[in-house]
Amino acid sequence: MERNRRITLARRPEGLPADDDFATDEVDIPELDEGEALMRTTHLSIDPTVRTWISEARSYFPPVEIGEVVRSPGAGVIVATRCDAYEVGDLVTSLPGWQEYSVVRDDVFTTPAPPGVDAVDLLGVLGQNGMAAHIGLLDVGSASPGDTVVVSAAAGATGSVAAQIAKLTGCRVVGIAGSDEKCDWLVDGLGLDAAINHRDEGFGDALRAATPDRIDVYFDNVGGWMLDAVLRRLAMHARVVLCGAISVYNDPRKPPGPSNYLELITQRARMEGFNTFDHWGRFAEITTELAGWVADGRLVGRETFVHGLERAPEALRMLFEGGNTGKLLVEVG
Amino acid sequence: MERNRRITLARRPEGLPADDDFATDEVDIPELDEGEALMRTTHLSIDPTVRTWISEARSYFPPVEIGEVVRSPGAGVIVATRCDAYEVGDLVTSLPGWQEYSVVRDDVFTTPAPPGVDAVDLLGVLGQNGMAAHIGLLDVGSASPGDTVVVSAAAGATGSVAAQIAKLTGCRVVGIAGSDEKCDWLVDGLGLDAAINHRDEGFGDALRAATPDRIDVYFDNVGGWMLDAVLRRLAMHARVVLCGAISVYNDPRKPPGPSNYLELITQRARMEGFNTFDHWGRFAEITTELAGWVADGRLVGRETFVHGLERAPEALRMLFEGGNTGKLLVEVG
Repeated sequence: MERNRRITLARRPEGLPADDDFATDEVDIPELDEGEALMRTTHLSIDPTVRTWISEARSYFPPVEIGEVVRSPGAGVIVATRCDAYEVGDLVTSLPGWQEYSVVRDDVFTTPAPPGVDAVDLLGVLGQNGMAAHIGLLDVGSASPGDTVVVSAAAGATGSVAAQIAKLTGCRVVGIAGSDEKCDWLVDGLGLDAAINHRDEGFGDALRAATPDRIDVYFDNVGGWMLDAVLRRLAMHARVVLCGAISVYNDPRKPPGPSNYLELITQRARMEGFNTFDHWGRFAEITTELAGWVADGRLVGRETFVHGLERAPEALRMLFEGGNTGKLLVEVG
Repeated sequence: MERNRRITLARRPEGLPADDDFATDEVDIPELDEGEALMRTTHLSIDPTVRTWISEARSYFPPVEIGEVVRSPGAGVIVATRCDAYEVGDLVTSLPGWQEYSVVRDDVFTTPAPPGVDAVDLLGVLGQNGMAAHIGLLDVGSASPGDTVVVSAAAGATGSVAAQIAKLTGCRVVGIAGSDEKCDWLVDGLGLDAAINHRDEGFGDALRAATPDRIDVYFDNVGGWMLDAVLRRLAMHARVVLCGAISVYNDPRKPPGPSNYLELITQRARMEGFNTFDHWGRFAEITTELAGWVADGRLVGRETFVHGLERAPEALRMLFEGGNTGKLLVEVG
């Protein structure tokens, strides 16, 4: 009988996760109880949040313990079912972790795919990334027509959707990314008004030039020095949307905070965090809107694939080294 | 003829302002143009914001230039008038600066006193401090009955009003102050649920013990390590109200930012700055509410007086050294 290959946490990574921080094993495929179904994972979503889950840091989930399967979002197909909510062949997303098979229930962390949607979109544009972009930009950030919106990691999975939604909203949109190639894609491919390569010298000058009316909304995926620099450029009543902080997740020291946070007083501005899980009830409504834009060609997803479950640790590193454009996915099996 | 004694900025202070950073001079009392009135200052309000105005830092006002009178709120009496809005004998607050006489106009920065209110209340409980406390706690912080509210510099002019309004709102209120005497006043005098002396060891433990349900609203006047410690104790959907950051205004280095700011993501919380000047249109309404509480004895002001214009620099230092309880005022002339 087929077995379940898994990647478990061998020890807590210090800094960038190394291959030795993980272990591979094989166990029996779980037996199903009443109300459960078995999902075979086809794609793992490689997200910065996984790095926080395997650290000791307090988060919205308890840390992954040593020896446990690495927690991760993913999509897959139902291959056996004792649950009314699923039929064999259904495509679902859940939190399968870094393994081939997992048990799903009809609970909030499992989402059946709307008709005509594939696993890739379900994990990216129409999944957590699309949700985070939509909720972060429009609900938390209150982006409105005419606003200047700056997005960091704008060529990433969430950033690229946030930047496109901002354009659809009628904002002036400036993306920040880590290579000229990514910047070219942002401007020529996605239609952003400007893009800044943060590895170039003179970031502050470039930011100033790209935001003549200052910044109304900063959609932040990066944190660190970039957040600090953007704080100095806020417009009155600006909103800093904290979606993530990829620059600090690997930092074994306590990273410094944004020393320019008092600009929030000067500019009567706010900085706010959010979590898409809090908005689960709106998933269907938001997905429908996003899917409409995708169908129209007004919202474009782009993916970088890594092949093979065993390469999930490598893919996680790639994410922090800027190796992906758009959504980073591991194709399993 | 009487002359106008003034204190001007001689050089930009580094760290705690020194007497040598200021100069004293005497000039003619200004002639009035049509639409102007002359105010003789009776009280100067000694506020942390004055420290930021005499630095080079970007603020909501341009920096005070070398040789200019130190900008400062104050209250006084109209002694001559060519303006319909004022009669001789009227009590007003404005931004007279550190000088005996100043010209006022019928503009937004001048507020006539409601009947029965004296200069002390007009500068404190019913003035900028009361406004900042009311707007910060209720509008920005959305404090509601049952919330746990923590106030830093709770024995200060704004903090003591914010803490009392939080009690009147039905919150559990914890004050942070710099001496046992102040803490005793907060609990025994103002009825707070708990007070923490931040100079004691074990601040984190004391904070945890005083906030069993974590912290819904943090009204921050202090910044620095205290803000960082409180961020670790936020409740879900908490609001951090940035009123000021007295701990950093004298720091000649760029002070570190709050490294625990990512708790804002974990707790889906926000940190927001504000400025009472934006709410000038509500001044009368809020003053009426505050004055009602003062008349009932439910809101108590307390003052520390320093006598003599020439001691304004000393008073400003006192503020940063925790020498005052409640409102710190210089009595002029």
